[in-house]
Amino acid sequence: MERLLIKEIANYENKNVQIKGRIFNIRKLGNIVFLVVRDYTGVVQVVANKEIDVNSGDVISIEGIIKKDERAKGGYEMKAEKIEIIAKNIETLPFDLEKDDINLNLNTLLDYRTISLRHPKIQAIFRLYDILLKSYERVMREEGFVEIKTPKILGSASEGGANFFKVDYFEKKAVLAQSPQFYKQIMVGVFENVFEIGSVFRAEPHYTTRHVNEYISLDAEMGYIDNFYDITKKLNKIIKEVIAEIKKEGEEYLKLYNAEISDVPNEIPCVKLSEIKKIIKEKYDYEIPEETDIDPKGEELAGRYAKENFNSDFIFLTHYPFEYRPFYTMPDGKETGGFDLLYKGLEIATGGQRINDYNQLIDNMKKKGVPIDGMEFYINSFKHAIPPHGGWGMGSERIIKQLLGLDSVKEAVLFPRDVKRIIP
Amino acid sequence: MERLLIKEIANYENKNVQIKGRIFNIRKLGNIVFLVVRDYTGVVQVVANKEIDVNSGDVISIEGIIKKDERAKGGYEMKAEKIEIIAKNIETLPFDLEKDDINLNLNTLLDYRTISLRHPKIQAIFRLYDILLKSYERVMREEGFVEIKTPKILGSASEGGANFFKVDYFEKKAVLAQSPQFYKQIMVGVFENVFEIGSVFRAEPHYTTRHVNEYISLDAEMGYIDNFYDITKKLNKIIKEVIAEIKKEGEEYLKLYNAEISDVPNEIPCVKLSEIKKIIKEKYDYEIPEETDIDPKGEELAGRYAKENFNSDFIFLTHYPFEYRPFYTMPDGKETGGFDLLYKGLEIATGGQRINDYNQLIDNMKKKGVPIDGMEFYINSFKHAIPPHGGWGMGSERIIKQLLGLDSVKEAVLFPRDVKRIIP
Repeated sequence: MERLLIKEIANYENKNVQIKGRIFNIRKLGNIVFLVVRDYTGVVQVVANKEIDVNSGDVISIEGIIKKDERAKGGYEMKAEKIEIIAKNIETLPFDLEKDDINLNLNTLLDYRTISLRHPKIQAIFRLYDILLKSYERVMREEGFVEIKTPKILGSASEGGANFFKVDYFEKKAVLAQSPQFYKQIMVGVFENVFEIGSVFRAEPHYTTRHVNEYISLDAEMGYIDNFYDITKKLNKIIKEVIAEIKKEGEEYLKLYNAEISDVPNEIPCVKLSEIKKIIKEKYDYEIPEETDIDPKGEELAGRYAKENFNSDFIFLTHYPFEYRPFYTMPDGKETGGFDLLYKGLEIATGGQRINDYNQLIDNMKKKGVPIDGMEFYINSFKHAIPPHGGWGMGSERIIKQLLGLDSVKEAVLFPRDVKRIIP
Repeated sequence: MERLLIKEIANYENKNVQIKGRIFNIRKLGNIVFLVVRDYTGVVQVVANKEIDVNSGDVISIEGIIKKDERAKGGYEMKAEKIEIIAKNIETLPFDLEKDDINLNLNTLLDYRTISLRHPKIQAIFRLYDILLKSYERVMREEGFVEIKTPKILGSASEGGANFFKVDYFEKKAVLAQSPQFYKQIMVGVFENVFEIGSVFRAEPHYTTRHVNEYISLDAEMGYIDNFYDITKKLNKIIKEVIAEIKKEGEEYLKLYNAEISDVPNEIPCVKLSEIKKIIKEKYDYEIPEETDIDPKGEELAGRYAKENFNSDFIFLTHYPFEYRPFYTMPDGKETGGFDLLYKGLEIATGGQRINDYNQLIDNMKKKGVPIDGMEFYINSFKHAIPPHGGWGMGSERIIKQLLGLDSVKEAVLFPRDVKRIIP
């Protein structure tokens, strides 16, 4: 008999079918047993004879008849006639997967990740993540961007600083890519508009709810821009479509988190960083510390301002000062054509216009004290005419964190990496 | 004036428009100058006054009138009225981008990668690559697979052996993922069917036309299989659709390489490895060296056999011996449920059924002498019932190499990594 997927059972009333899946719950009632069985498409209650020897966690095959039953979740249940164990759970599960909420602290959730991921509410996070990837790919292509894959083992650090990991590369010392920055800019000279979905690695020794040391960046770079608002406009359009698709296709998963997703405005408010600092001081009586561009509390209040004044969950903060932006950022007086995009008060994307003139780039590197060593291929490519351009890097997992209101971005990574954690 | 994309010019006959792009060729003829200008959508010949001060490689903006001209490529040319330089090429290009063929040796091609990628024929490779990514994503989703992203910094090597790169990870020693093997198997316990498009890293000290040290693997893992032919059948279906889409959407790029792409058969021939060795000996009088499973020459002849006997560019070689397959491969007597897929005589995918029983896995590790250390999370997940499953890892760049008949797989990587090369 062919396996029937559980989502199809409503079409097989009174028919004899076979399903396969995992037992999530067992309840005995007199002479019968109720099994809650899930496959990747749905869940069904199975009524069986109490003689069967199965346990929660087992993977089984069931033959039986589909019956309409108003009391059952989904309106149908299955009367089992034959049950076979496909794979047996041989050790007690470390925690209960049967309740609606998993209620584990973050460390337990991650230490037992191979099992906690099986909980329907945790699964929902990664169903939404799948939709996010799908929609970003689709929208970027529709906007004329070409998908590229650039190397993650690099000869020199693309973002400078000290937050890169070192790799032993045969006889050489290499580093892991902090971003695809150099390569996507070079590709503007080839395809004008490119995007990449790829791993980035940041050796940041922080323990926060906002950081992981390896994540998936949704990158883009676009050529022939007039100014950096061309970039914010494009990102606005893309995030609007992506959120709309997640909202539509992810409804059942969002519901598990009571997540209310507002539509993205056609024009996300753009406020200069220097402006938002003033606003935050005046409106919310909070002074952003001098030694930072903006701190987490400042981001939160900027998000609040966007919601209260523009009914927007998103806000662009623009014109970051020169000192807080990397050497490749296009200057604009003491400020730059660099921006951040916040979603519900958390930075989810960083972007800006880049320098595309060779001499200006060399000047800016000198001003920043950035050595040219190892970057010649990048710098020299600007000798050969690359049009004005810019782009963004967006933290895919942070989008999901904010969508669902998760406590930590680590919850939105299948197997997150932090200072102490490289297993599982 | 709004920029018009070059692919649109046929709709603007006798209209005044603006285009932007790069000059690929300049030819002077009496009082006029012909410029070949390309943007990311097409190419057009521009007729200008000889007084203009532009050079090959410059990025320019042109206002002018579109005129029908039978002699021009595409049937239209542009009479320039105003030309502005957007970005100037300030150093002579290292080679000629104007000829139909680029004709550089591999080292020059890669040393000057930031420029060689601009050649239309090289661009075509990565246009096809973009289509490959797009179609793999689409088809996998249609087949019910969920896209996942798994970590690339690992606590222990997933494929064993010595061909992994070491990373300094804070206080710990970590390695770069040779594959997403452990994680995709664990995810079968969550979503049944998963796929990943991600970077993999192999510290192989080889100089061959078939190897790079970092590549993009198209991975998949599927649960509830009856035997490993469920996997080869699924891969057959997927590769058939992917190739069909590339053939359809990539026509203009394939043409540049005179690449003739045969349809993938509904049933790609499956031959046991032990069988193909006999066939190769008998038919082609070649003895595959004893110390290898199959060598490049053997693969080539297996490909020839598939073409001559089944009119197929693809062939599955199945039942690899135990000694040549990793510890997680399902045994089958002295052989295993492991296979390779060859395309035009080159391995493009490796896959098989995996062990899903905890005790069998422990036994197999002992037989192979693989230490458990650092893999506990992986092994223990099989205590908690994972259904029979298997999958594949497919080298995305090798598919493109074989499609186009490129000499080296490095030509199908934007910025390839080999033993000596981490720049550009």
